[in-house]
Amino acid sequence: MYNFAEALESIKKKGLYREMFYLDAAQGPHTLVDGKKMLLLSSNNYLGLCNDDRLKEAAIATIREFGVGAGGSRLTTGSYKLHRELEERLARFKGTEACLVFSTGYAANLGTIAGLTDKEWVVFCDRLNHASIIDGCRLSGAKLVIYKHCDMSDLENKIKRYHTGKGLIVSDGVFSMDGDIAPLAEIVKLAKKYSLMTMVDDAHATGVLGPNGGGTVDYFGLEDEVDIQMGTLSKAFASEGGYIAGKQILIDYLRHKAKSFIYSTALAPHNIAVSLKALELIQKEPERRKSLLEKSRWFRGELVKNGFDVPMNNTPIIPLMVGEADKAVTFSRILYDEGVYVPAIRPPTVPNGSSRLRFSIMATHTDEDLAMALQKSIVIGKELGLI
Amino acid sequence: MYNFAEALESIKKKGLYREMFYLDAAQGPHTLVDGKKMLLLSSNNYLGLCNDDRLKEAAIATIREFGVGAGGSRLTTGSYKLHRELEERLARFKGTEACLVFSTGYAANLGTIAGLTDKEWVVFCDRLNHASIIDGCRLSGAKLVIYKHCDMSDLENKIKRYHTGKGLIVSDGVFSMDGDIAPLAEIVKLAKKYSLMTMVDDAHATGVLGPNGGGTVDYFGLEDEVDIQMGTLSKAFASEGGYIAGKQILIDYLRHKAKSFIYSTALAPHNIAVSLKALELIQKEPERRKSLLEKSRWFRGELVKNGFDVPMNNTPIIPLMVGEADKAVTFSRILYDEGVYVPAIRPPTVPNGSSRLRFSIMATHTDEDLAMALQKSIVIGKELGLI
Repeated sequence: MYNFAEALESIKKKGLYREMFYLDAAQGPHTLVDGKKMLLLSSNNYLGLCNDDRLKEAAIATIREFGVGAGGSRLTTGSYKLHRELEERLARFKGTEACLVFSTGYAANLGTIAGLTDKEWVVFCDRLNHASIIDGCRLSGAKLVIYKHCDMSDLENKIKRYHTGKGLIVSDGVFSMDGDIAPLAEIVKLAKKYSLMTMVDDAHATGVLGPNGGGTVDYFGLEDEVDIQMGTLSKAFASEGGYIAGKQILIDYLRHKAKSFIYSTALAPHNIAVSLKALELIQKEPERRKSLLEKSRWFRGELVKNGFDVPMNNTPIIPLMVGEADKAVTFSRILYDEGVYVPAIRPPTVPNGSSRLRFSIMATHTDEDLAMALQKSIVIGKELGLI
Repeated sequence: MYNFAEALESIKKKGLYREMFYLDAAQGPHTLVDGKKMLLLSSNNYLGLCNDDRLKEAAIATIREFGVGAGGSRLTTGSYKLHRELEERLARFKGTEACLVFSTGYAANLGTIAGLTDKEWVVFCDRLNHASIIDGCRLSGAKLVIYKHCDMSDLENKIKRYHTGKGLIVSDGVFSMDGDIAPLAEIVKLAKKYSLMTMVDDAHATGVLGPNGGGTVDYFGLEDEVDIQMGTLSKAFASEGGYIAGKQILIDYLRHKAKSFIYSTALAPHNIAVSLKALELIQKEPERRKSLLEKSRWFRGELVKNGFDVPMNNTPIIPLMVGEADKAVTFSRILYDEGVYVPAIRPPTVPNGSSRLRFSIMATHTDEDLAMALQKSIVIGKELGLI
């Protein structure tokens, strides 16, 4: 009945067919991709903790004591003291009263927005927000109003036009495919002016930005101003999961209303133990994020100096803009043949015509790693007429 | 703006406020709940593998080699050879061409239904299907048509009335809160007659039912007839995750269309290694599921003999029907005080007026464990006027 073959053919014709690459070594600066040794420059393992011995030992000790699976949902038999400890410590880290851990970041955004809003709500959403935020609005039936990327004047105009009573402004803190930082202070001001709630998806900023590594909310010092702080445990934290931090009453409410929370098995205790150890290291070792940002600044600056179209920001996500999907794929494929792994990012992840290579830096990359990737990119960029 | 306090007050008034219980030992027949030693009779750890040494060693060896986190989504840097191996072996286990692993069962159902259907589709859905299936329909905008629980005549009437072109029948294989088995052979017949696709959520049956432990599809011998087989890795498999098994072209399609797959970090390699080891044991040790079903039959039979309202089925999910939410909570609380942990299941998880205790058996419960729980339930049942 359903013509999958035709749908896939259409995807292929648009150059959007996705091949899978399979790693066979830990997620570090150097790994094995399809059996080949590669420099990995597109991982979310920002702080290089995925292969850290202390996180591994935390996981192993917890497996020995608690086994391998949670065995139930958080509201039945799957909540462990470890979950509570992580939630309490994340809340303190984020400067909030309470926190709720979900299975993934996607589940945290989806379940929270769908649990909080309904058809009477208007959700004002940056055009480049993560897909899970859009899906949350679609699931709840809230009116979704997209504003131009980081454009506060467009946001205010749309608030004036569409805001009727219950409203929420949602923004990524650091945008996942562009690496720029949202103007949170301005967003919070508009929210106050028009009595809207605010939500920040700090998946890519937590552990990376801010004096305490707390993300963009910490970076701007807005802990008391942002109502809902979302983050993930699968990026800088090197583990699995997502979470929502906010007031106790919000968290109590979500515990009863977020279906992705209620109807999923809890994360296994050892994955929680990994997040706890990662949080400890993020708090104790600020030099990791300092080094990460220094390396990122250098690499971004060199790309720009050499003529690439790369926006200037101070984050480890560095998009090298290419344009057409097939050219981005070619760039990525040549780099791959040269031993550098940077997948092309194409629609539907980014808008048509804005395909790119998305470099992301790890704290554990060496200067030599980055210089090598830079030199190869310059050669290929010239061949492809990008510089 | 949002009156969370009022919303929570209303939840409390309905007797639906949920307290959290925190475990502090492995998910086995005996565990620690809020510091107290308890007989656990409500776990999804059906085969008792959560604390199995072989699964623990598989996880530990993989952590030592691959670290603790996947570091990226499946389409960027998070796919490991282990993911491919698990998907290939699950496909063989399920008698299908291919398989795709998601972060949770909720994500598998949600992403698949939302990726496959749209407003032109009609989804025929058993009234007691898992919430994730409903959310998938709501997310895609497909027309959702609920048919009476396992009622094939109601299903056919509704197909005749609502089926217009693109349609899908979805059913749980074993219903999570009732423990009964869907009439899959009849569902498949109706699907053929009216040219509909079929999808089975075998979360609670996989590893438990069928000559090969393959679930209800295996139990009925319908591998070639069911289009989409969904399962989880967090119940009998004692790990984390969910998956979809079906034809290669379906899986290729979902890989491009299921947003919960595309936009989530991959499961960490060690969690995949746990699932691989669990699959091996499920295939090599059929005596586990035989013992599980024998114990379940005995416990269910004794509850019925003693006058409790318990439906007759041959699964390890045994609902003891109570009715009102507050009475179910009282029953559960007295059992808790007596050292038996069986949370009450209340709305919105089950319909109003059908609150219950939901016992679930593990292969590792002893006869003494079950006899003790039975005796205590009989005493409490008499006190509460249920028998």
